[in-house]
Amino acid sequence: MTTSDTTLHPTLKFVCSTCGKTHAPEESEYACRACGPSGILEPASLPITILEEGLFTSSPGMWRYEKLLCLSPVAPRPPLHVGATPLLHAQRLGQSLGLPHLHIKNDSLNPTGSLKDRASAVALARAAEIGAKRVAVASTGNAGSSLAGLAASMGMPAAIFVPASAPRAKLVQALLYGAQVFAVQGSYDDAFELCLQACDHFGWYNRNTAYNPYTIEGKKTVAYEMYEQLGNAAPDIVFIPTGDGCILSGVARGFRDLQTLGMIDRVPRLVAVQAQGSNAIARALAGSGTLSAIKAHSVADSISVNVPRNGAMAVRDVRQSGGRAVVVSDEAIIAAVQELAAMTGIFAEPAAAASLAGLHAYLAEATEESAHSRHEIVVLLVTGTGLKDVDAAARAAPAPIPVEPSLHSLEEALNL
Amino acid sequence: MTTSDTTLHPTLKFVCSTCGKTHAPEESEYACRACGPSGILEPASLPITILEEGLFTSSPGMWRYEKLLCLSPVAPRPPLHVGATPLLHAQRLGQSLGLPHLHIKNDSLNPTGSLKDRASAVALARAAEIGAKRVAVASTGNAGSSLAGLAASMGMPAAIFVPASAPRAKLVQALLYGAQVFAVQGSYDDAFELCLQACDHFGWYNRNTAYNPYTIEGKKTVAYEMYEQLGNAAPDIVFIPTGDGCILSGVARGFRDLQTLGMIDRVPRLVAVQAQGSNAIARALAGSGTLSAIKAHSVADSISVNVPRNGAMAVRDVRQSGGRAVVVSDEAIIAAVQELAAMTGIFAEPAAAASLAGLHAYLAEATEESAHSRHEIVVLLVTGTGLKDVDAAARAAPAPIPVEPSLHSLEEALNL
Repeated sequence: MTTSDTTLHPTLKFVCSTCGKTHAPEESEYACRACGPSGILEPASLPITILEEGLFTSSPGMWRYEKLLCLSPVAPRPPLHVGATPLLHAQRLGQSLGLPHLHIKNDSLNPTGSLKDRASAVALARAAEIGAKRVAVASTGNAGSSLAGLAASMGMPAAIFVPASAPRAKLVQALLYGAQVFAVQGSYDDAFELCLQACDHFGWYNRNTAYNPYTIEGKKTVAYEMYEQLGNAAPDIVFIPTGDGCILSGVARGFRDLQTLGMIDRVPRLVAVQAQGSNAIARALAGSGTLSAIKAHSVADSISVNVPRNGAMAVRDVRQSGGRAVVVSDEAIIAAVQELAAMTGIFAEPAAAASLAGLHAYLAEATEESAHSRHEIVVLLVTGTGLKDVDAAARAAPAPIPVEPSLHSLEEALNL
Repeated sequence: MTTSDTTLHPTLKFVCSTCGKTHAPEESEYACRACGPSGILEPASLPITILEEGLFTSSPGMWRYEKLLCLSPVAPRPPLHVGATPLLHAQRLGQSLGLPHLHIKNDSLNPTGSLKDRASAVALARAAEIGAKRVAVASTGNAGSSLAGLAASMGMPAAIFVPASAPRAKLVQALLYGAQVFAVQGSYDDAFELCLQACDHFGWYNRNTAYNPYTIEGKKTVAYEMYEQLGNAAPDIVFIPTGDGCILSGVARGFRDLQTLGMIDRVPRLVAVQAQGSNAIARALAGSGTLSAIKAHSVADSISVNVPRNGAMAVRDVRQSGGRAVVVSDEAIIAAVQELAAMTGIFAEPAAAASLAGLHAYLAEATEESAHSRHEIVVLLVTGTGLKDVDAAARAAPAPIPVEPSLHSLEEALNL
């Protein structure tokens, strides 16, 4: 390693978000040894301490931010191009809501169709670096197809544990990528637990969300991109679909990094958007902050969880940001799928369109004092493509208009 | 208009690809007035004649090539970010085929999931420029959802004409984008004809493929991107899924433009990949060049056409490039969906994976003399995402492995 490499990557440490104990990466690959799976690790500091060289690089996609990732610079990377997704200034939609500075970060344009690719990319780089022979993940869908796709691109075998009820599109995708897909007769939590056991038993590399600390490291890059795409500025408020709370903590960490580096003054207010049937984080925020399990059910399967595995960190990050949670119904989510598509051309899966439903709820609950939000820079984070769950979207779609192949019949259909 | 604008956009003319008659854009918006729909118009020349200023701009996505598009610089553009899709160096897949320089141009990462977005973007810009109040297209899938999505992003009403037999899942995307979708009781040809009549009668803007000359203008940008992504070089050979032949002619025009500008020596050999059940262009190339209608049927619905509406131009472009056609079975296409996903992480719709099936066919038919192709730069064009047709992909996918939520059950499933 050259001196330059050493400068960029000093002794890397992770700290337990629950007990504060510090771990070197080789001491514990995943959660805190003392606290178990609830002791989620975070980097103790940014891997870069000097700003003499360019902070961002010309590497493709999210690797533009390689200097800010807690990852060895020699870790092999999956070749699929992840990140560098568009930020759309949604003028029509913004106008209809009285928000002239409404933007949409469209992470559904990642290679497997979801933001999870950012997490998979970094986790796979870490897995390859430490010589893993197989990677595994428990997933309701997106994380599994993401890991399978990115693993395929680098020739790494993958095992995916899904609850048997996951949408077929997401299973087909992972299966086609050549992953072993295990349909677990049980909940996501059962799949999560079985994946932990399997990795422990067989020595597979575990990419489980809210357990593997490299996943949030990958997700934070979406915040860096928002910053650059807004002309080197942070938004005022970001709406984030929230189940386990990992994407929210990724966004928080990204902006916190920029604050640490003196590039922005403060982290944007983060709004955790939860489905009515999966609202554990919202309930914790409304109460004492303590999380309790619920029996989750929502059309937005990607944010439907019984136990938010990154809940404590997400609650902390929302509070630190001065943000809040909003809760939206399945009906509001489905309506948001249609409104987002018709007003912006972005076809999102239900969980992803939830950010728009959350914006509606937020505006409806806004008091006079918070009306200044209408002049702020607002970002909706769209986390996955609607093509992953066409059946759910079909619930929001009107029927086609039948016509005979004649102008006369068309005129009748148009009531002319 | 400033002098600079005039220099970049001289008097724009289109020429009929059938009879050679020249038309100003305002004389005929679509096909040649003398030849009718078969008289497809092409730009008489590039809109740029001097290279003093930068040829490519910093505009986002495909608008980077705005100076090379036969389109007014003041035409309003749909805000969705189209183009700038990744070119993947497919090392694993290339190794397995003995092709070290195999690349995949992944146009499934366009905002509505297909290359058609390039055509819709330019057609919509033209429609907005001339004050159209509504845009229309006949389509069985990608062109319709593409026009609907990009129209939604700019608030332009859209009408989509589909054959009534089209499965609803294919229409959900267009319906959600808010387009009027007319289910025509008849074939695709009936829908095409009714769209022509409706546009003529109501003054709607017609984006029909192989009729509207701006669609191929948009598609040509994919060739410019390949050139830049290969380090300012043309590939030696490009495999292109081919139905109507418009994408092929778009790729040909893009490389021809670069040749005209002196940036490359020659157009790459273009290989038209056709499905066995939709092989009109391949048959014409094998025979006298004359096209005859067939009764098309293929799992690759996006390249399944009875009459290739851009067939004559595609035959000309393949021949001029020194390329050829290859024909692949539905079984080979479905196998290619799986191979592409498992070897590269790119999940393509059947029509898009046909380019890989075509490469296999090409290599199998290659003679000793053509073995030099193994050292050439090869590009497979992937035109649409597999998430658009999960049912077809499911035919290639193995079943998930059912397990109880226990390590014991998992070990049994793994036969340990």
